[in-house]
Amino acid sequence: MGSRVEEVPNKQVILKDYSSGFQKESDLLVKSGSIKLKVPEESSNAVVLVKNLYLSCDPAMGVLMRGVPVPGFIYPYKPGSPIYGYGVAKVIDSRHPNFKKGDLVWGMTAWEEYTLIPKPESLIKIEHTDIPLSYYTGLLGMAGLTAYAGYFEVSSPKKGERVFVSAASEAVGQLVGQFAKLLGCYVVGSAGSKEKVDLLKNRLGFDEAFDYKEEPDLEVRIDVYFDNVGGKMLDAVLLNMRIRGRITACGMISQYNLQQPEGVHNLMNIILRQIRMGGFTADNYLHLYPKFLEKLLPHIRKGEIIYIEDVARGLENGPRALMGLFSGRNFGKQLVEVACE
Amino acid sequence: MGSRVEEVPNKQVILKDYSSGFQKESDLLVKSGSIKLKVPEESSNAVVLVKNLYLSCDPAMGVLMRGVPVPGFIYPYKPGSPIYGYGVAKVIDSRHPNFKKGDLVWGMTAWEEYTLIPKPESLIKIEHTDIPLSYYTGLLGMAGLTAYAGYFEVSSPKKGERVFVSAASEAVGQLVGQFAKLLGCYVVGSAGSKEKVDLLKNRLGFDEAFDYKEEPDLEVRIDVYFDNVGGKMLDAVLLNMRIRGRITACGMISQYNLQQPEGVHNLMNIILRQIRMGGFTADNYLHLYPKFLEKLLPHIRKGEIIYIEDVARGLENGPRALMGLFSGRNFGKQLVEVACE
Repeated sequence: MGSRVEEVPNKQVILKDYSSGFQKESDLLVKSGSIKLKVPEESSNAVVLVKNLYLSCDPAMGVLMRGVPVPGFIYPYKPGSPIYGYGVAKVIDSRHPNFKKGDLVWGMTAWEEYTLIPKPESLIKIEHTDIPLSYYTGLLGMAGLTAYAGYFEVSSPKKGERVFVSAASEAVGQLVGQFAKLLGCYVVGSAGSKEKVDLLKNRLGFDEAFDYKEEPDLEVRIDVYFDNVGGKMLDAVLLNMRIRGRITACGMISQYNLQQPEGVHNLMNIILRQIRMGGFTADNYLHLYPKFLEKLLPHIRKGEIIYIEDVARGLENGPRALMGLFSGRNFGKQLVEVACE
Repeated sequence: MGSRVEEVPNKQVILKDYSSGFQKESDLLVKSGSIKLKVPEESSNAVVLVKNLYLSCDPAMGVLMRGVPVPGFIYPYKPGSPIYGYGVAKVIDSRHPNFKKGDLVWGMTAWEEYTLIPKPESLIKIEHTDIPLSYYTGLLGMAGLTAYAGYFEVSSPKKGERVFVSAASEAVGQLVGQFAKLLGCYVVGSAGSKEKVDLLKNRLGFDEAFDYKEEPDLEVRIDVYFDNVGGKMLDAVLLNMRIRGRITACGMISQYNLQQPEGVHNLMNIILRQIRMGGFTADNYLHLYPKFLEKLLPHIRKGEIIYIEDVARGLENGPRALMGLFSGRNFGKQLVEVACE
């Protein structure tokens, strides 16, 4: 009581108001504030103060900016408050028995330099620090678990199959492709530029890749379609599925910036080709995280799985980085580095 | 050789030409011909001559009339030849060791009074004749197997769930509803008239039923949607599915009379609600037919499963009966009685 507590600047990314129509950079405001580096006395016992290091940019965040709820996120953003999402952080002060000063964690945090986490039970402690910490926003975070659960738990994958991944150079897609290659599949990916196509073929080990903007007419036979984009691509794929193929519905980024989603016309093929289509969200597979880590870490350490990141440095560059997802400006997993440590 | 063979009249339903746009009654022609009641000497050994008794009217036949192939049917109809489909028939003459004169069979046959079946291996012998023979065009034929495989093999059904069936008074739908009731589910059905709704509620044991033309805005919580219609109904259901619900794609009759299928806009719900959507065609489940019979026959004999048929008498009334499927003129399973025995 009465002890002096250091007060430091705390930059924040605030949602000005719900985006009308498509979310845009000017809906967000970078604001300077300050914060005391101690969990306030009046807070409940179970509160943790963290310093944010890396913040994940996820397409779902654009949906939250429009006030629309998304599974896995507790509530849509509130105008006047900082936006939030997945991130990597370091514990500065803690009243929670599971966390102590210096712990590294990943989980839901706000877009600001320091955050009071009201329910720290959802934070996951980072045990393996020989891996770049930023990977816990993607490869070893929700994107990784999404790719793992979606491919191994939802897609019923088999060795030797033909797997097609859309948005294949993105946070989730690049991993699905590598998982399928490890299983011994023939993997085809689509992306939105020549550079991304080269990345898929030359660094990520895809057997084939194409620029969907240049080659809209798909002609591949597909056993498993891992769908990150929805819309017209899904419609085209339905005409190219093999009998008893599987479509794993992971995301529909082509639809997130539309007032009204596009119609998909070729669903009759689900009957004709005896397709199984399965949707999922990774927050329902959090119980698999330890198994996922155990399986992935050796591959990562041996360099058999790599991960391409696009890092925006400084919280003030966060809004632009986040919006870049919707025009495909990012090259690999987009994240924001708030601080190195 | 030289022995006298009886020649009898043989009425046929001929496809004049591929339907341009939506198939219509005038695309079909009832023609009088004649046939010798013996498998011709020059035919291969494995040929069977049958007298057709009952012919099944199936929505897929409208698609075949437009020259479009359909799984489970060997080829689209040929202009100038009789159309074909599932039916019940009696063997008149046989060169195949598995069949003898007097045998009752069901399977693919042509729309005529007498048919030479070139590959009789696909015919199934009717063993249980205490059940009305016409039921082998529906309840104990492909519609029954479709309902059985689609519900029990594809829908992952559980006791106590809420099941919604569209086109619920039709050949397949009326059975799915009764199967779900037997399992202890709460069953809701849609149909296209007040009389059909009454049938569902008062005779087929559905818990709720509604006329989709009067009540287009669906508001029910659904665990399993057994989809026989596709299009707008599927779009509406996607907004009403429970988390981890299943959609079984069996048919899309609302789309069969359109040049271009309607777009389905709400597929994002497959992700958000973690839905599994599965398509199937019953011809891939023929191996289950003996098990299906064993399971169904006791229920039918005890009157626990009933079946509503709409019987057109006389082959000459076949074209109108078949076309009635597409305007919903039929009341229950539509079939044509060619002869009683």
